[in-house]
Amino acid sequence: MIKVGIVGVSGYSGYTALDLLLKHPEVRVTYASANNTQGELSEIWPQLKGRTRLTCEKFNVDKAVETCELIFLAVPHTVSMQITPLLLDAGLKVIDLSGDYRLKSSVEYKKWYNQKHTDGANLRKAVYGMPELYRADIAKASLVANPGCYPTAAILSLAPLMATHPDIIESIIIDAKSGVSGAGRKASVALSHAEVSGNFKAYKVLNHQHAPEINLYLSKLSGQQNTVNFVPHLLPVNHGILETIYVSLNSKIQLKKWHTIYRKFYKTEPFVRLEDLGKQVELKNVVGTNYCDISLALSADKKLLVITGVIDNLYKGAAGQAIQNMNIMCGFDEGEGLQ
Amino acid sequence: MIKVGIVGVSGYSGYTALDLLLKHPEVRVTYASANNTQGELSEIWPQLKGRTRLTCEKFNVDKAVETCELIFLAVPHTVSMQITPLLLDAGLKVIDLSGDYRLKSSVEYKKWYNQKHTDGANLRKAVYGMPELYRADIAKASLVANPGCYPTAAILSLAPLMATHPDIIESIIIDAKSGVSGAGRKASVALSHAEVSGNFKAYKVLNHQHAPEINLYLSKLSGQQNTVNFVPHLLPVNHGILETIYVSLNSKIQLKKWHTIYRKFYKTEPFVRLEDLGKQVELKNVVGTNYCDISLALSADKKLLVITGVIDNLYKGAAGQAIQNMNIMCGFDEGEGLQ
Amino acid sequence: MIKVGIVGVSGYSGYTALDLLLKHPEVRVTYASANNTQGELSEIWPQLKGRTRLTCEKFNVDKAVETCELIFLAVPHTVSMQITPLLLDAGLKVIDLSGDYRLKSSVEYKKWYNQKHTDGANLRKAVYGMPELYRADIAKASLVANPGCYPTAAILSLAPLMATHPDIIESIIIDAKSGVSGAGRKASVALSHAEVSGNFKAYKVLNHQHAPEINLYLSKLSGQQNTVNFVPHLLPVNHGILETIYVSLNSKIQLKKWHTIYRKFYKTEPFVRLEDLGKQVELKNVVGTNYCDISLALSADKKLLVITGVIDNLYKGAAGQAIQNMNIMCGFDEGEGLQ
Amino acid sequence: MIKVGIVGVSGYSGYTALDLLLKHPEVRVTYASANNTQGELSEIWPQLKGRTRLTCEKFNVDKAVETCELIFLAVPHTVSMQITPLLLDAGLKVIDLSGDYRLKSSVEYKKWYNQKHTDGANLRKAVYGMPELYRADIAKASLVANPGCYPTAAILSLAPLMATHPDIIESIIIDAKSGVSGAGRKASVALSHAEVSGNFKAYKVLNHQHAPEINLYLSKLSGQQNTVNFVPHLLPVNHGILETIYVSLNSKIQLKKWHTIYRKFYKTEPFVRLEDLGKQVELKNVVGTNYCDISLALSADKKLLVITGVIDNLYKGAAGQAIQNMNIMCGFDEGEGLQ
Repeated sequence: MIKVGIVGVSGYSGYTALDLLLKHPEVRVTYASANNTQGELSEIWPQLKGRTRLTCEKFNVDKAVETCELIFLAVPHTVSMQITPLLLDAGLKVIDLSGDYRLKSSVEYKKWYNQKHTDGANLRKAVYGMPELYRADIAKASLVANPGCYPTAAILSLAPLMATHPDIIESIIIDAKSGVSGAGRKASVALSHAEVSGNFKAYKVLNHQHAPEINLYLSKLSGQQNTVNFVPHLLPVNHGILETIYVSLNSKIQLKKWHTIYRKFYKTEPFVRLEDLGKQVELKNVVGTNYCDISLALSADKKLLVITGVIDNLYKGAAGQAIQNMNIMCGFDEGEGLQ
Repeated sequence: MIKVGIVGVSGYSGYTALDLLLKHPEVRVTYASANNTQGELSEIWPQLKGRTRLTCEKFNVDKAVETCELIFLAVPHTVSMQITPLLLDAGLKVIDLSGDYRLKSSVEYKKWYNQKHTDGANLRKAVYGMPELYRADIAKASLVANPGCYPTAAILSLAPLMATHPDIIESIIIDAKSGVSGAGRKASVALSHAEVSGNFKAYKVLNHQHAPEINLYLSKLSGQQNTVNFVPHLLPVNHGILETIYVSLNSKIQLKKWHTIYRKFYKTEPFVRLEDLGKQVELKNVVGTNYCDISLALSADKKLLVITGVIDNLYKGAAGQAIQNMNIMCGFDEGEGLQ
Repeated sequence: MIKVGIVGVSGYSGYTALDLLLKHPEVRVTYASANNTQGELSEIWPQLKGRTRLTCEKFNVDKAVETCELIFLAVPHTVSMQITPLLLDAGLKVIDLSGDYRLKSSVEYKKWYNQKHTDGANLRKAVYGMPELYRADIAKASLVANPGCYPTAAILSLAPLMATHPDIIESIIIDAKSGVSGAGRKASVALSHAEVSGNFKAYKVLNHQHAPEINLYLSKLSGQQNTVNFVPHLLPVNHGILETIYVSLNSKIQLKKWHTIYRKFYKTEPFVRLEDLGKQVELKNVVGTNYCDISLALSADKKLLVITGVIDNLYKGAAGQAIQNMNIMCGFDEGEGLQ
Repeated sequence: MIKVGIVGVSGYSGYTALDLLLKHPEVRVTYASANNTQGELSEIWPQLKGRTRLTCEKFNVDKAVETCELIFLAVPHTVSMQITPLLLDAGLKVIDLSGDYRLKSSVEYKKWYNQKHTDGANLRKAVYGMPELYRADIAKASLVANPGCYPTAAILSLAPLMATHPDIIESIIIDAKSGVSGAGRKASVALSHAEVSGNFKAYKVLNHQHAPEINLYLSKLSGQQNTVNFVPHLLPVNHGILETIYVSLNSKIQLKKWHTIYRKFYKTEPFVRLEDLGKQVELKNVVGTNYCDISLALSADKKLLVITGVIDNLYKGAAGQAIQNMNIMCGFDEGEGLQ
């Protein structure tokens, strides 16, 4: 049994982490905090009534250190980098769900998050928490930068290709569609039911802060400098991301061969499922789960590979993957508490 | 051609009025204002691009008076009663979509809207804008209090019964369900897609400010003091209200007879449709229209009459009825601009 | 470990049972069948890919008997009563999710299900599977009639009142609202997204086959003959039922007293949660769970008690309650596999 | 006044055409038919109650010819080509909303619609009903092939580029998202609310029958052979199509220049609106209207132009455009009956 805390429990990622951790057989949730609301957790999240008597407090680092061995940070970016060094110095493990420790360069961070990074030392040490790529490093890490939701689907969908055939890629376009919970829990006309329901639109076209994260980790995989064209859209659903990824290739490979490459790459992965050829992934098959499902199609001239990847943005795209990371860091079964 | 202005054009009722008025053959929209946003109307409501070059201004009474003959007030309650006397004094006609002039007593107003009423003179003079009941008065009115959305469906559903058989009614329960646009256009976690979609709940149980409005006009119809039990719910749809109304009766009347009573009562009404016996009204049949549809059912022992009424809360429940009132006040065909 | 089978696994109740049973630590799912589709379960329900290798077969009683100790029947009514006697005779336990064994009279069954009942012997022996009322009987039963979705919410919402104050009840109106999964998984224009989304309507007004089931078990509780007025509506959501129940009373009791009565009645129940006074239950708090949440309100004159109950129709209203029943029948912890 | 008939009035396109025509000041609807349902139109479409007394009959060519001057065919493909020659021979004008007369080659038709084309003569004579490109031809046509929904958004979004800069285009990818009404009104598990709501998926990836239609008319515009990569997706909304179109260019042009090219191209078009630079189109701005809205974005290296186009699939993508075509064919104001 490990003692675990969640900072930022009033948001959707924090709630999802809490819900999963309350069911986790190896974990005791000993601390929960949020700065915009306090009180009984079952008042903040009535779903939890009867499941926990824990209260949500204003964040206090001493209390967190005193009660926990590992902390999930489900707070906005810039808040994480203020708290993280304190927790690490006190010997805690930290899994950060914000964007603060994902980009490995302060310059890039400043460019995309519009803030100076104040914890360069840990920025360098943080391990990117994508188990399929960095499992061994995660196992030894004290600070894990949990991947963004869009990057999780993008990188998992592209990893086998980037790792095995980086030289034949001419360009990559990612047409991404996300449910509204990805935007967080906040008062906003733009996120209101009357505006979102029945609507659909692109936003931050070719200009989203997750693009450099995708580029960074794809480039590590390929050993080259890759730059994707990333266009996100807002889906009128609460949960889930589907990305349709168009890869232009300068070499002709059969679709069956691609399928084999992907199958081998993910052969032993518990949370990546490859769809049969001729079938397409669907959001509903992964909503509420930690799976990433991937399907493949190829143009008749074999020059355009169409990869479709789906995840639940709050599970594999946030809290689910965070718990998967915790399991690896703590030596638990990797799927524990995630079914 | 009449020159018309809309105050409060940034909300859903104001927008719906504007959309209808831009298509109205007898109207020129000459003024639009809102206090929380200004600029091109087609920036505020991109749907209107190419349809109007009007700008939205901060409210200025002189400008309104100078440019208009009739004003629609689609503003929050308490704001209306500040503006209305000025417009009336300047000789304009006013149709007020807020709750300020519906209850005829300052005491009741204070009780339910938690504010002192500051325009008692006009409160007494205002005509309740339900054409099916007060057409002749509306034709002569300079101030029309446009009915609330819930009261419109409730009163139309009950009027034939109240007017013809007030003595056999033992109790009335109104189980009302409304789409989210009824709550207005505002930044609110509770109205966000992630909270509303897939959800359903009752609110202000037996304690909604529309209950006294319903009671007042039903009592006028029946010549008795009626008090309904009113329970509203929030539907995960954008548009529409359905009310299921349970009337306990102490006299046994055949369902066919009730149907005949209702058919006669609404025989010449252009915007009330009575469903055939054995069929039930549906939200989708009235969404985007000014119709109120009504269906009837009766328990085997004939002691419980179940009346189901539907409207679009923004049309017959707000802006549509307001334009119907304008048509009557100005001597236009009553259905002009409402198809 | 008990060996369990599901008959009718291609419907939503069958799927939900399967999903829950695959995670249940005391159960091995050894048989799955459906008559309208066969093959890999993970082809029929792609969500299950990677979680089971079981195939779905056409129903064969010998195969079922050979492989299972307990069977869940998630089949249409009339199909259950053909299969059940065979399974019981072979010594299996049966939990029937259809309506075949809920009404205790062949006459009533014929009236509401429009079919002659062909298994009168077991109809008499079947235990109604509502643990909060019949836990001891369920523990000894070999055939459990799992309650209908509407009756589950209705009876749990009314039980404390019926059991303690039957004499002061004058009338009961149940205004029920259900998500579409309650109608099953079938090809139907009326259930299509284009017809349901954005829509709302009442159906089978005062004429739904769940009404006699509600009346039967309420009457057992009260020791009197109770007849509710039941009006169901179709909500544009996939999961969940909310019932707003209006009880006319001829005696004045404080709301606090009612709250205490309810709290005591459900004090030790793991799956019934009473909402604090002043708060209202919401669908989203129970969706995906086995909870029934209940809230109470009272009119100013204390003559109308408004009880609001919510469940997930596929969990507490079907498969979840079925697993709760299995746990009781098999001596497992009652909440095992239901969190 | 022209006498008009609709064949296939029980589907969504047929209904939308009927709804628009009933409001059209120059039209009298004199005939309505459907082969799967007959009776009062206001029984089939309760929305129309009080608006028409017309009945829907089984299709009879003599009756159609006798009562109408112009017919809208809103029937499945293959049905149109059986009826059309008879109507044309009798001197009627025909606007066909099916796919039967869009592709100009019997070979292509056979390939994509899997049926032999039986009316080659009219296939050659039919005019493609996209007013923005073929207004003059439409004015003289007796048979108009109304464009498909996906092609309407695709061709309008690409036309200015294809017409002015065909030589710099390297490749075109169309990532299209459509609401469910595009699939028609039919009983289908896949189209049910429980399957569609909250879901999202791609289908017919690189293999949709609208791709050759897009290729044909883009190639006419460019004077070259263009082949797009077309991937449609199913959105959980009822109405609307958004297409995100990625065009790889081999020449660098400023975004402002592209914006000017588009603005000039559509300068006088009543139903195409160009979004300001920096803004993105949204589904809700066109739902229920005949508009096509277009927005433009460009990658930093100017090599990827991202065009986003939206229409309502039932208006500009079907019935609305059909009425626009009728207006042109009959010499009415082009926007008559479309606001």
